[in-house]
Amino acid sequence: MSRKILVLDTTLRDGEQVPGAKLNLYEKLELAHQLKALNVDIIEAGFAASSQGDFNAIKEIASQVGSGGTTITALARAVKGDIDAVYQSVKYAQNPLIHIVLGTSAVHVDKKFNKTGDQVLEMGVEAVKYAKTLLPHIQYSTEDASRSDFEYLWKTIEAVVKAGATMINIPDTVGYAVPEEFGELVRKINYRLKNMSDSLILSVHCHNDTGLATANTLAAIKNGADKIECTVNGLGERAGNAALEEVVMAMKLRSAYYDAHTDIITKEIFKTSRLVSNLTGLDIQVNKAITGDNAFAHSSGIHQDGLLKSREVYEVIAPEDVGVESMDIILTARSGRHAFRNAAEKLGCSFSDEAEFGALFAKFLELADAKKEIYDHDVYYLVEKHNGSKPEKETGGDMKVDLYELVSFQVVSNDIFPTATIKLKKGGDIFKYSAVGDGPIDALYTAIKDVTGLEVDLKEYKISSMSRGKEALGRVAIRIGFNNKIFTARAMDTDVIKASALAFINGLNAILLDR
Amino acid sequence: MSRKILVLDTTLRDGEQVPGAKLNLYEKLELAHQLKALNVDIIEAGFAASSQGDFNAIKEIASQVGSGGTTITALARAVKGDIDAVYQSVKYAQNPLIHIVLGTSAVHVDKKFNKTGDQVLEMGVEAVKYAKTLLPHIQYSTEDASRSDFEYLWKTIEAVVKAGATMINIPDTVGYAVPEEFGELVRKINYRLKNMSDSLILSVHCHNDTGLATANTLAAIKNGADKIECTVNGLGERAGNAALEEVVMAMKLRSAYYDAHTDIITKEIFKTSRLVSNLTGLDIQVNKAITGDNAFAHSSGIHQDGLLKSREVYEVIAPEDVGVESMDIILTARSGRHAFRNAAEKLGCSFSDEAEFGALFAKFLELADAKKEIYDHDVYYLVEKHNGSKPEKETGGDMKVDLYELVSFQVVSNDIFPTATIKLKKGGDIFKYSAVGDGPIDALYTAIKDVTGLEVDLKEYKISSMSRGKEALGRVAIRIGFNNKIFTARAMDTDVIKASALAFINGLNAILLDR
Repeated sequence: MSRKILVLDTTLRDGEQVPGAKLNLYEKLELAHQLKALNVDIIEAGFAASSQGDFNAIKEIASQVGSGGTTITALARAVKGDIDAVYQSVKYAQNPLIHIVLGTSAVHVDKKFNKTGDQVLEMGVEAVKYAKTLLPHIQYSTEDASRSDFEYLWKTIEAVVKAGATMINIPDTVGYAVPEEFGELVRKINYRLKNMSDSLILSVHCHNDTGLATANTLAAIKNGADKIECTVNGLGERAGNAALEEVVMAMKLRSAYYDAHTDIITKEIFKTSRLVSNLTGLDIQVNKAITGDNAFAHSSGIHQDGLLKSREVYEVIAPEDVGVESMDIILTARSGRHAFRNAAEKLGCSFSDEAEFGALFAKFLELADAKKEIYDHDVYYLVEKHNGSKPEKETGGDMKVDLYELVSFQVVSNDIFPTATIKLKKGGDIFKYSAVGDGPIDALYTAIKDVTGLEVDLKEYKISSMSRGKEALGRVAIRIGFNNKIFTARAMDTDVIKASALAFINGLNAILLDR
Repeated sequence: MSRKILVLDTTLRDGEQVPGAKLNLYEKLELAHQLKALNVDIIEAGFAASSQGDFNAIKEIASQVGSGGTTITALARAVKGDIDAVYQSVKYAQNPLIHIVLGTSAVHVDKKFNKTGDQVLEMGVEAVKYAKTLLPHIQYSTEDASRSDFEYLWKTIEAVVKAGATMINIPDTVGYAVPEEFGELVRKINYRLKNMSDSLILSVHCHNDTGLATANTLAAIKNGADKIECTVNGLGERAGNAALEEVVMAMKLRSAYYDAHTDIITKEIFKTSRLVSNLTGLDIQVNKAITGDNAFAHSSGIHQDGLLKSREVYEVIAPEDVGVESMDIILTARSGRHAFRNAAEKLGCSFSDEAEFGALFAKFLELADAKKEIYDHDVYYLVEKHNGSKPEKETGGDMKVDLYELVSFQVVSNDIFPTATIKLKKGGDIFKYSAVGDGPIDALYTAIKDVTGLEVDLKEYKISSMSRGKEALGRVAIRIGFNNKIFTARAMDTDVIKASALAFINGLNAILLDR
């Protein structure tokens, strides 16, 4: 049986403290419930002494989520006031834990505290002794451990364990470590620590300043760490923390190598990642490992071709394992013949001979060179246009689906009544509608929905926009639900409002094509 | 002298092929020029046989950028047509290189090609022999090397080197490798390869499916690799490639450990990263290592406090080293007393005693619990309001600056004349203006600029927006230039148009406070 690695999630503490990520009480509770569904072992719910808002949130999370197997902790500096605040907020959990942090590196001891090493060590010991009078489980973090003198670091660990600490956390606070070194540090500490007592837990907390947080965390697991600290989407101070989804899935993919596992329910990963992104408003970049929009999308011709032959050629993690509904193949000029043929055939198109296919593929390449991405409905239009030039009997005439096209629009944003008016075309029919909404996008989508009469549910709406000078380019990506199925669509335009309209229409067309 | 590591940038090939990233000819040329400014050794400019657009772009890049020390290459499958397309496009460079890729793993050989190992090996040898008739420098990539049988992999390498390959690239195509294993693979190959000839170059190409691309690339360098392949922002197929900025800065930070260096001009990193993001429209997540918005921002009280005492407490890489103008400290409820005092004093405020400071700090905490982020102008309002309640002589009355406030707005988006009307307040004055623009945001910003009369230059405009159901929350971040200085500002609102207005007004207020 492989070793069980404890997972502490600190999205609500190290993650929530970053610019822009602040959450209110209800948002924190929603996330805490989802972290429980993800089955993390320990939730670090906040930094209790920092503000009344933080304190209250920790208390509510401890009360409402701190049961069953879920331990609740919060951070304290090595001072009585902080430790009291943690105790008074986490004590409502069935398994509360006090987490004390204090630096051990020379730069922390000298420059931050302006004390001697022994004085700082004594602060830590006193803090643990005091915390121990309140609760049995105490985690002690030796801040900046990776830049600390090893013998001073060990002296500190030994002293705080004797004072009652039950869990030792080794942070790579500034993301300075490299995997080989960090693994070796953990191995040495673990050897000495387990000589003191087998029941002591060794933990690591890695930051991502040079992109090595996941690798350092995995190196620590390989070298004996019992527990890891991480955050969803790798959110956290500066470049963030080790991303929970990366460490967990790397361990799962390479379970034989690490001989270790977590109890994380991986099918909840995608949902948790999207929840964190929605609550904080902080986007996940498309190429983020495991949870980015493109993490399971294959666009190059070579890859799409291989993938259509066998998924394992280019896919080592199944999207379903992390709760992603479907693999997205978006065609580009590089997709190649095989992928284009596959997409066309999926839409019900067949080719009488290779010459016909070749002609259509040439048109596809032209379109793909002009547009950035080719979606199902573009392929459909290409094929339909091509078929339109052939006698009716050849195509059977049964695959014609009329799709919606934007004719014109007007959207008024103001602080009273945001209003949208929209004119759409479908085949020979023209539709016009107006609607009022909570905001311009809401008004626009209500008007479009009213035209189509489709009962769709907008699951996600995302704009990203960049400009240099005046040419702002808005890119909108949406996910919509219809009849228990999820459809994704995108569009780009220099006007973000127009891009929003086009993306929604693309999504509705995808539904029409699917029926 | 430490070893020089060659850097091949494949943003224009592996990066550009991802959904949404497609660039036109002029965009590709702009990026290629910037990659030259960054001083990469080799630019992989595209996949020549995939489309006419790609072919033309490679040819133009070879002609315009392929001089001095910059080698230009492009990708070919192991077939004559592909190799011809590469040769015909890269030959315009002073130092052209042909890059051939062919799988070596069982899943590639059996499932993708449906051939025997010897047949596939022979394809590779023939391809190299043919390429060698065209150019002296040939790179051969053993696709999916990390999942290949070692002896078959080595047999392939030996055979293609004998056929004329001068550079062997070991890709971790699906992001399966872990650093210890990948380092060991590179060590073994390098030992045998250098036994064949010292002049052979060993390269690696790592993907980031479980977040280990940077770590695997660094492990390869530690174990003898001479060259690395990476992309700006880690863009690339699925979860992307090793991020150039991470690998380069990790090597720089830990140069003693790696005993190796690159010739990358690191001060160009931030600019290159933003250019790639602007051209592709693909955002960089805030916690992206090295180049994310928060990579050098410190928000927790503990960190801000330490940082104000000495930068090296929490900063191992200086932002200036990668071309970032300034370190952003944004206050939150967790920022603590020291950071708040620092921000207030920076704005010219002094406190008569600790009680006065304490009262103001309590108000700050209240505001910070209510708002998500506290900017300079919020601190300014707090202090000003506080000073307003004191007799005039105490404050000197000389720090009063009137700031702009949004009173009301209306923005009309349509396909004819996007128009904005805006009403602002500044002190006792009310201003109203209308403007027409290229799009709704352009109209809005023109109107606001006309009100203030400030000659600002919008450098970057970014919206990110998330909604579940109807509560769309738009978050706008801008960077504006004024008098050779860069100001950043943000705002959030359920209406993206209103959020855009507020962000711009926040930015203008930051300029007023700075004067």
